[in-house]
Amino acid sequence: MMGHHVSDGVENKELDAASLPSSQGHSIYKVGFPQKRNFFREFKDALKETLFADDPLRPYKDQTGSRKLILGLQYLFPILEWGRDYNFSKLKGDIIAGLTIASLCIPQDIGYAKLANMDPQYGLYSSFVPPLVYALMGSSRDIAIGPVAVVSLLLGTLLRNELDPVTEREEYIRLAFTATFFAGITQAALGFLRLGFLIEFLSHAAVVGFMGGAAITIALQQLKGFLGIRDFTKNSDIISVMKSVWGSAFHGWNWQTILIGSAFLAFLLCAKYIGKKNKGLFWVPAIAPLISVILSTFLVYITHAEKHGVQIVKHIEKGINTSSVNKIYLTGSSAMKGFRIGLVAGMVALTEAVAIGRTFAAAKDYQLDGNKEMVALGTMNVIGSMTSCYVATGSFSRSAVNCMAGCQTAVSNMVMSAAVLLTLELITPLFKYTPNAILASIIISAVIGLIDYEAAFLIWKVDRFDFVACMGAFLGVVFVSVEIGLLIAVSISVAKILLQVTRPRTALLGNLPRTMIYRNIEQYPEATRVPGILIVRVDSAIYFTNSNYVKERILRWLRDEEEQLEAKQLPRIDFLIVEMSPVTDIDTSGIHALEELHNSLQKRNVQLVLANPGPVVIDKLRLAKFTELIGDDKIFLTVGEAVMTCAPKAREDA
Amino acid sequence: MMGHHVSDGVENKELDAASLPSSQGHSIYKVGFPQKRNFFREFKDALKETLFADDPLRPYKDQTGSRKLILGLQYLFPILEWGRDYNFSKLKGDIIAGLTIASLCIPQDIGYAKLANMDPQYGLYSSFVPPLVYALMGSSRDIAIGPVAVVSLLLGTLLRNELDPVTEREEYIRLAFTATFFAGITQAALGFLRLGFLIEFLSHAAVVGFMGGAAITIALQQLKGFLGIRDFTKNSDIISVMKSVWGSAFHGWNWQTILIGSAFLAFLLCAKYIGKKNKGLFWVPAIAPLISVILSTFLVYITHAEKHGVQIVKHIEKGINTSSVNKIYLTGSSAMKGFRIGLVAGMVALTEAVAIGRTFAAAKDYQLDGNKEMVALGTMNVIGSMTSCYVATGSFSRSAVNCMAGCQTAVSNMVMSAAVLLTLELITPLFKYTPNAILASIIISAVIGLIDYEAAFLIWKVDRFDFVACMGAFLGVVFVSVEIGLLIAVSISVAKILLQVTRPRTALLGNLPRTMIYRNIEQYPEATRVPGILIVRVDSAIYFTNSNYVKERILRWLRDEEEQLEAKQLPRIDFLIVEMSPVTDIDTSGIHALEELHNSLQKRNVQLVLANPGPVVIDKLRLAKFTELIGDDKIFLTVGEAVMTCAPKAREDA
Repeated sequence: MMGHHVSDGVENKELDAASLPSSQGHSIYKVGFPQKRNFFREFKDALKETLFADDPLRPYKDQTGSRKLILGLQYLFPILEWGRDYNFSKLKGDIIAGLTIASLCIPQDIGYAKLANMDPQYGLYSSFVPPLVYALMGSSRDIAIGPVAVVSLLLGTLLRNELDPVTEREEYIRLAFTATFFAGITQAALGFLRLGFLIEFLSHAAVVGFMGGAAITIALQQLKGFLGIRDFTKNSDIISVMKSVWGSAFHGWNWQTILIGSAFLAFLLCAKYIGKKNKGLFWVPAIAPLISVILSTFLVYITHAEKHGVQIVKHIEKGINTSSVNKIYLTGSSAMKGFRIGLVAGMVALTEAVAIGRTFAAAKDYQLDGNKEMVALGTMNVIGSMTSCYVATGSFSRSAVNCMAGCQTAVSNMVMSAAVLLTLELITPLFKYTPNAILASIIISAVIGLIDYEAAFLIWKVDRFDFVACMGAFLGVVFVSVEIGLLIAVSISVAKILLQVTRPRTALLGNLPRTMIYRNIEQYPEATRVPGILIVRVDSAIYFTNSNYVKERILRWLRDEEEQLEAKQLPRIDFLIVEMSPVTDIDTSGIHALEELHNSLQKRNVQLVLANPGPVVIDKLRLAKFTELIGDDKIFLTVGEAVMTCAPKAREDA
Repeated sequence: MMGHHVSDGVENKELDAASLPSSQGHSIYKVGFPQKRNFFREFKDALKETLFADDPLRPYKDQTGSRKLILGLQYLFPILEWGRDYNFSKLKGDIIAGLTIASLCIPQDIGYAKLANMDPQYGLYSSFVPPLVYALMGSSRDIAIGPVAVVSLLLGTLLRNELDPVTEREEYIRLAFTATFFAGITQAALGFLRLGFLIEFLSHAAVVGFMGGAAITIALQQLKGFLGIRDFTKNSDIISVMKSVWGSAFHGWNWQTILIGSAFLAFLLCAKYIGKKNKGLFWVPAIAPLISVILSTFLVYITHAEKHGVQIVKHIEKGINTSSVNKIYLTGSSAMKGFRIGLVAGMVALTEAVAIGRTFAAAKDYQLDGNKEMVALGTMNVIGSMTSCYVATGSFSRSAVNCMAGCQTAVSNMVMSAAVLLTLELITPLFKYTPNAILASIIISAVIGLIDYEAAFLIWKVDRFDFVACMGAFLGVVFVSVEIGLLIAVSISVAKILLQVTRPRTALLGNLPRTMIYRNIEQYPEATRVPGILIVRVDSAIYFTNSNYVKERILRWLRDEEEQLEAKQLPRIDFLIVEMSPVTDIDTSGIHALEELHNSLQKRNVQLVLANPGPVVIDKLRLAKFTELIGDDKIFLTVGEAVMTCAPKAREDA
């Protein structure tokens, strides 16, 4: 029989554990065994919890066939669901929001395309088709789809490692579409296979650092356009860029360019500041870029500044996206390169889009199915890759504007898309005289928002390890390159996971005087140890990754304690109580480690006692006959009961 | 102020949580804050716990310089430590054990070399130098060093993927030494950098399956020698081998070979059985292989059976190891190949050696420093690669014999090494007439021991997921190849880790009647829920990998509960208590998730309450101002206290 002794009327006495009578005979509760479950049931449940944690099939239960089909279609195309409740007042909100983000995205798109080393029209293309596809399939109401700075930079860097964007222009564009295609395939596959949780392997801290570093890198790159430098480094690290900038300080800078750039940058930053101070004026920073473009283009056109060294866009294709189906490499080494690049860019794009979606869904309190979002984003990029678009995703800044401008549904993306269509068809030729310095100013003022120094400061305050991860990614991007920064971010995240699974925490517990409560003696200095008994809590499931460590760490606690007791000539330890409450699971390696622990303890004449093993653990311990090995009466419901039973014995021995 | 109310004298009353008075004013304990620690101190402690969990520098504290040097040398060469206490009685034990394992290893070595597609003498070489090096540097007393079946097979398979062992023999041997060199470098580096815990990423279950599968594959390969088939498949999967065997059934089998093989296999298995039944006769199976070799060689020699189709060893080089320093590739693609192969073979060899070392250390209760062992094993293989040896490691079967034969120290390895030296110098030419069938029989009888069906059965009983891992590795090796099996084993192990970090368990808690104890209601059906309060326990640290899941899972518990309550027309949930005891740590993503949880709950008019956050968690929650957000008085020392405070309020609302 397992002896489990509920503490009867002890909490209101001054409790000296060692003097307590063993309350044998008062047992009310035993450590419970869960009902034996069928293997396949168990397996199914675990699989469901892993892959279908959000229970997406719930609405389909008890439905007829045709209803299931409708629900299925609605699942794939949420527009069928929310479209039925759509009305004029929503449309009004969506039109205003859509036009606002369009005015923001058009100048940004042209600039971001340059980050990806592509012609300006490709940025606009990517703001036309992908938002339409997303509007049909996506379930976020607030996200604004299109090219974004970080992904454009990353894609541009990865592509340039393979091909030269100037001399091998045709192949470069083809590889970009190939990468976009595979980015979409990767995203959709992750969602479809319900492996979306994999994107959570980038820790928040690493993302903050990476984004901040990328923003600085992008801003530095803009110095080329901003200062009018013609001969600029191809490296993106701060040292190369600074050398380029200083090296051309006396002959390469163009004062007209700097003048235009600075004036409009000041204007943009002022607009940003106004929008921040007064939330009602959110539209000021939203339309400021377009106004800058219009004004500066007009200015250049009438002053012929392009003849005084002010660089302009020069050429931008008119008309909408052409088909690029034939340009995608599907075989050979180019396809492999495209796949590798697409995988990386797609994952980063996904991380950003899902983070945005979740943020706004939480703010407006609606549910967002991450896996479904991935399928939508993936499909959007696959279709994009066939219509001359490069990787699109959700933009932080534009989504915020979208939300503030009162968007109601994904229709705002459609409105934006229509505005981009009109731009492409009608006014792109006018962008010919747009000075590059303006685009640089727009990008600089946009990416400044990505430097989340408040988050970095909070990370510094709360968790110093996270801060190391954050800074690692940041410095990696700024001082080496965007890929290295990403690699550092991923490595640190993985290292943190490894640390978590190999080195679980353990704690010594003590009794809070006048209670039956046992707590970590580091946290509660008033907690007192019980003579002759060592109480250790293991704070993790015991698996193959940590079983040896757990065993050896417990033995080390014992060894340290025994040394101290010996030095003080106090009675030795007779019982080692392992508080198992946090040990939610154990595998065969873990059980093996417990057996070895038991053997080692027996050789030292210390009795192993377990407190509160959970349902899974007690079940497995019983099946492995470990309960028989240490004796059923060595397993208690609480530490308090274990101490009550052990303490008198420990005293006798002393 | 944080309100934490210790339950005074309630455990001996019939406790109806909802009717309890809120014990405001009786607070004795608050949730404790740990002392603020210096960042570098914290970082140092974490680093130490990760890399120096076994505190190897402890003996060096407070020692003089020269004493430190001696201790350092003793650390590197444990022989300097145990050598001083060495005496004649220990020597006696070691000589007997050493001779016993020598008689076992000589015939095995010749056979195992063939598994690696190498000439027989290389097996003997690898039993000469490596054991000597290990004896100087290793700290296990029982391990028997030399070539082993699984590593030989793995090395042979990986090498043959690159080069043909017959037509490119010279390069093949060179690549084998290169792989051995890098295997040693890998092993030593892991130990030196104290990254030994990485080998724990292969789960016990996966290793059991892999070993069993490898044993069957090796046994199947022996059918070539055992049946005297000349034309045998080069694939190792069971289907190819069986086709080869049946395909040559009528013309390729050699009855004389089968007769000799079967007779001696029967003899070996009998000897094994005797040794198993009577532990005192352990030497019977230990010397049986050598006796078989001597008898069968003599038999072939006098009957000239080699002229009747019985295949013999034919050629075996006489003399000890020659230097192979110049044969190791250090640059170029061959070095890269060697590195890759060495990495895999070295890791598998390490896993085996460390498992053996730990098993015997636990049985005889002495400490073994895994990282130090790795340095010893690595050095041994590096030196081995320069003296014509291939990857050596600890052998399960020979170590067991070594232990049973009464070995006292690593001197038994030296004795074995000396015996192998004499063999190489004096009697190798006699092995010329040894029939291959005998070597096949010896290998078959040796590898049978690697099929640990008892462990597999225990795994099946205890943990069905582990069993899937075990079978996956087993079937992968048997039906595809040894690399695929290893890949499956590693993949399943990694998947298990991912599962652990992304999908922690959560549980609903209920009150055990007449106590203040709250337990999982699945484990304790008698546990009752408290009206208006939902109590959820999160069973893991909350990190970026699982923070979203934890948040959404808690909300799902709430949603499910509310649906049920609504259906039953019971009062709604007012308080959600999260039992934080098992939450040992939290990072910025985790805090963010808690904030989102709090926001979602507020929108539903549910109050978030925390119970018993640990030292690290409460500290970070305070720094991130989360405690201010939910209110200090919403954090309690125990679930019981939280319920006592919340229950009356929940009642009022109802």
